[in-house]
Amino acid sequence: MPDQQAVQLMIKARWIIPIVPAGRVYEDCAIIVNQQKIVALLPVAEAEKSYRAEQTVCLGRHVLMPGLINSHGHAAMSLLRGFADDQPLETWLNEHIWPAEERFVDADFVRDGTELAVAEMIKSGTSCFADMYFYPEQTAKVARRAHMRAQIAFPVIDVATNWGDGPDDYINKGLALHDEYRDDDLIRIAFGPHAPYTVSNDSLQRIGVLAQELEAPIHIHLHETANEIADSIGQHGKRPLERLRELGVLSPLTQCVHMTELDDSDIATLASTGSHVIHCPESNLKLTSGFSPVARLSAAGVNVAIGTDGAASNNDLSMLGELQTASLLAKNVAQDAAALNAHQTLMMATLNGARSLGIDDITGSLELGKAADIVAFELDELCAEPIYDIASTLVYNNRAVKATHLWVAGKALMLSGHLQTLNERDIAAKARQWGKKIVQEYPRPS
Amino acid sequence: MPDQQAVQLMIKARWIIPIVPAGRVYEDCAIIVNQQKIVALLPVAEAEKSYRAEQTVCLGRHVLMPGLINSHGHAAMSLLRGFADDQPLETWLNEHIWPAEERFVDADFVRDGTELAVAEMIKSGTSCFADMYFYPEQTAKVARRAHMRAQIAFPVIDVATNWGDGPDDYINKGLALHDEYRDDDLIRIAFGPHAPYTVSNDSLQRIGVLAQELEAPIHIHLHETANEIADSIGQHGKRPLERLRELGVLSPLTQCVHMTELDDSDIATLASTGSHVIHCPESNLKLTSGFSPVARLSAAGVNVAIGTDGAASNNDLSMLGELQTASLLAKNVAQDAAALNAHQTLMMATLNGARSLGIDDITGSLELGKAADIVAFELDELCAEPIYDIASTLVYNNRAVKATHLWVAGKALMLSGHLQTLNERDIAAKARQWGKKIVQEYPRPS
Repeated sequence: MPDQQAVQLMIKARWIIPIVPAGRVYEDCAIIVNQQKIVALLPVAEAEKSYRAEQTVCLGRHVLMPGLINSHGHAAMSLLRGFADDQPLETWLNEHIWPAEERFVDADFVRDGTELAVAEMIKSGTSCFADMYFYPEQTAKVARRAHMRAQIAFPVIDVATNWGDGPDDYINKGLALHDEYRDDDLIRIAFGPHAPYTVSNDSLQRIGVLAQELEAPIHIHLHETANEIADSIGQHGKRPLERLRELGVLSPLTQCVHMTELDDSDIATLASTGSHVIHCPESNLKLTSGFSPVARLSAAGVNVAIGTDGAASNNDLSMLGELQTASLLAKNVAQDAAALNAHQTLMMATLNGARSLGIDDITGSLELGKAADIVAFELDELCAEPIYDIASTLVYNNRAVKATHLWVAGKALMLSGHLQTLNERDIAAKARQWGKKIVQEYPRPS
Repeated sequence: MPDQQAVQLMIKARWIIPIVPAGRVYEDCAIIVNQQKIVALLPVAEAEKSYRAEQTVCLGRHVLMPGLINSHGHAAMSLLRGFADDQPLETWLNEHIWPAEERFVDADFVRDGTELAVAEMIKSGTSCFADMYFYPEQTAKVARRAHMRAQIAFPVIDVATNWGDGPDDYINKGLALHDEYRDDDLIRIAFGPHAPYTVSNDSLQRIGVLAQELEAPIHIHLHETANEIADSIGQHGKRPLERLRELGVLSPLTQCVHMTELDDSDIATLASTGSHVIHCPESNLKLTSGFSPVARLSAAGVNVAIGTDGAASNNDLSMLGELQTASLLAKNVAQDAAALNAHQTLMMATLNGARSLGIDDITGSLELGKAADIVAFELDELCAEPIYDIASTLVYNNRAVKATHLWVAGKALMLSGHLQTLNERDIAAKARQWGKKIVQEYPRPS
């Protein structure tokens, strides 16, 4: 057929959830990919008539979606997965995680831990992640090598750590990293002031100015616990969010992670400044940090995205698992079983994530012209049946669902469950070695 | 070696969590099974010296546990999985589930739906389930054929349904069924008064007397929502639990399902009568029914077990998934991140389940003399690493865990992921057919 257009990739699937238009499900359609982008989404019969693809992938029991966006985590902390469970946030940080980090975290730890996390994220359908951790240059290298899309926030914190001497050192290192990745099409570098209680006014103010100059995002743990609010009122005479607003930190570049403790003035401030909320329900539940009022935030026009947080407080990086928890929790916080329905929840994990990271012009939905960041989930023959609503299956019955294929900007990161850009066996072996080393040198506190 | 004892089965595993003694994990040990029972649990080297087994199963990356006990569900409702999501309990029941049940539920529906549920339960590591649904004779037949251990409660409700004319008819049919299974070693028949708001005083009183005479359990939905309590106070002048106590329904034979709304007097009543609580966290969350105060109940000496409820309100039957939700939720209801730790949560899904069903002399732990009801979970090579605490992996990182083997009373129901007593392909095909039929004849309300 001489009038067929030559393209690189055709993916045919039983179901497609494009996210835009909202709530829509296409059946027996195909996505056409060329030069890293989505060029068409149309019924299979029309696709076969109009396009001649170098490669065709047929997915008869699968649903295609935009790759999931994990909007908050600490990838390298996967090496501390399950290291200290059943502890509240302050104890967990002060008595377990921070001492272990001081003992073990170096460039190798971050490289190997990030590889473990990136492999797990790809295998569970995540195409893009936002990270905040020490040695961010290692995180960026791993993401680049794996061909993941990522926002890497370099941490800024008032104290010295293995990675640097203090706020100025962190900011200098971070700015150099930002410069290095300025033209990268997958990796963006963000400011990562750790939390309002660990960063001074001066540093926060400087970050606010620099972020605007560079148009770089700010990623910060915020309003994670009631104690944080009380301490801030005691120390600064104001709530953390108000303090950040006065210091010039809040804008559409700002990603506020956790936000469990919110009053009406906080929600109004988030809405008026255009700041984003990154909701991490499983980590908040596990550390008993509180509940983010997701439905109220959305109703106020605040963009809410979802993150798993690090595996040390989750203990996995499955975004589908996080979505189920997010939806179930939001219904109860709102006292409304209709709150955060399946399609709304899927949007939080895709387009809202892209918005929060400032890349919704590039990814987050299966729209023409966007990057081909696409995941395929295969449905279990038995446990997924019967299927009345595929969005419901993905959110409420996702143990019957398995990510099998993942593309980022048209490049395959996973095909039929096999990683294409990372060596799964090597990564697993290294993770086991780290676990042994950590247990031998630093027995877990009981 | 002439002094070796001949036995039927030896299972060697990397880890074993026996549940009793509590909190214990054995490494590189073996379980010896003979004549349906556990006869030894000892290090592999000693096992090889002392026993000669007809069959040996080597599980080098697996953890063995007592099979999980799903203490509340409606197996046949798996055919309505995801049929009406994002609705509160009353709307869900009155406008969606009950009309659909009236239209479709018959003996075939219950047989096929129960097969689907039993297959999913076996595949996710459940060896025993408690059920309440119409046509309980079908449920019992399927469980018996699959060689699952089960408590089947026949429903009693004031209104006529497809299965019968009213309370007396239900009780008569149920008593006949109880008689039929009197000597069965796997199946027990229980009374299933649906809920305090659907069963009259007369019927509840009669059930209380009959249950004591027959030493048969009573399984009842109770204190599921705040509305239920308010309506009972309005209609009867007392809370549902108090009404049941006065009617003679509460005793160690009684399994109170849900129990989200509890005051101090309720907890004292449960403790003093020895009644059991069956906690169904995911169903409660999805229908915004409220939170059961699990840690307070346990502290008061009330036995708490866990159930998935039916797949129509969950939407899966994974007990490991339910455990993660139970633990995360309990921490927040108790405002204590140490509440319901991993080992305590595993006990709820095993020994506490057996206690609630009155079969803890037979199953619920890997103790010598108990039935060989055993599950093996295999750990993902990548996503389970590193492993600091195998109990934590099972509760907080169980997406990296897959049930591969399951035995009930020494008989294999699943080996290496393959069902041994049910035909997975046939069951899936029938479930798909039911889904099509239901959609065609009864389009889902939007």
